[in-house]
Amino acid sequence: MEKVNIGSQGFTLPMPQAILGTHIEGRPNYMALGWVTRVNYSPPLIGIGVHKGHATHQAITETGQFSINFPSTEMVNITDYVGLVSNKRVDKSELFDRFYGELKDAPLIKECPLSLECKLYETVSLPTNTLFIGEIVGTWCEERYMTDGVPDISKIKPFVLTMPDNRYWEVGRCVGHAWKAGKALKK
Amino acid sequence: MEKVNIGSQGFTLPMPQAILGTHIEGRPNYMALGWVTRVNYSPPLIGIGVHKGHATHQAITETGQFSINFPSTEMVNITDYVGLVSNKRVDKSELFDRFYGELKDAPLIKECPLSLECKLYETVSLPTNTLFIGEIVGTWCEERYMTDGVPDISKIKPFVLTMPDNRYWEVGRCVGHAWKAGKALKK
Repeated sequence: MEKVNIGSQGFTLPMPQAILGTHIEGRPNYMALGWVTRVNYSPPLIGIGVHKGHATHQAITETGQFSINFPSTEMVNITDYVGLVSNKRVDKSELFDRFYGELKDAPLIKECPLSLECKLYETVSLPTNTLFIGEIVGTWCEERYMTDGVPDISKIKPFVLTMPDNRYWEVGRCVGHAWKAGKALKK
Repeated sequence: MEKVNIGSQGFTLPMPQAILGTHIEGRPNYMALGWVTRVNYSPPLIGIGVHKGHATHQAITETGQFSINFPSTEMVNITDYVGLVSNKRVDKSELFDRFYGELKDAPLIKECPLSLECKLYETVSLPTNTLFIGEIVGTWCEERYMTDGVPDISKIKPFVLTMPDNRYWEVGRCVGHAWKAGKALKK
């Protein structure tokens, strides 16, 4: 069938859905985050694209710390909510229970099965967004969400985001093993 | 339940699974790509983390162009395969049918329901990987994979990757609408 060019606003399919945690004037704040990926293996670096207009943008610039928390599907509404309302108008500091690891300005969300605490490693200023690159200093989970000591997506039940249709999706069944499934094609 | 710190090698949960296309000495080459995210809204910029040892790394440095292709679940084995074998040992140029948009060194994969063609915008050198930031100049899809002119994940059926357990997962049902689901929580 014919390929058509639908323009330059393409998106990854799908995006992981996370909640970005920061401290603003000493109080926790949260926003929905879909633009996030690992960018370096060693040290473990992760990049996030944050719009320059967000309160979170200023928070990361000031404290040099942030958290990336992965909610489960039962947290769809609250995750969407923290993306809808700004700290400039609504105090979101008590929306979640929180805990801290090594970094005192990276609030980790207790309700989220998986959380990463990050310290700012490098800042890449782009036209409308800033790409903050953080070094992961801790990965927090619970035994009930892990198998063999490793986070298990079938227990965590996170959700993913698609744009520009703006929908959230659950993750389904396992369809293969990475760095294994392709071995049959090797000559 | 108790939160435990499982170390610094945390990953986004899950990662989109793509195939990165480049030209090496005028011939197409492909590798599996899980470290990818949008990083800027306008212009539309996308970032990819590529290990410095990969042939693809040299290709992007030389041509300044690449493609990001999203395979469907029926392409799990071939997607994994292009991540297992290096261009240094195996010629992968004829693995897929290809087409081109505006960029002559960004081979787009016909078998993939969704493809982005990108030209290099900025290069961020990190210790083990390079973060290549590309500007999206075209988004290619087919009518049968879209609804109301927009790529539809339920028709495209891509898959996602988890690390460090190294598994591929299909995407399940829709669990909410972004920028809408949280409105009920607004006061």
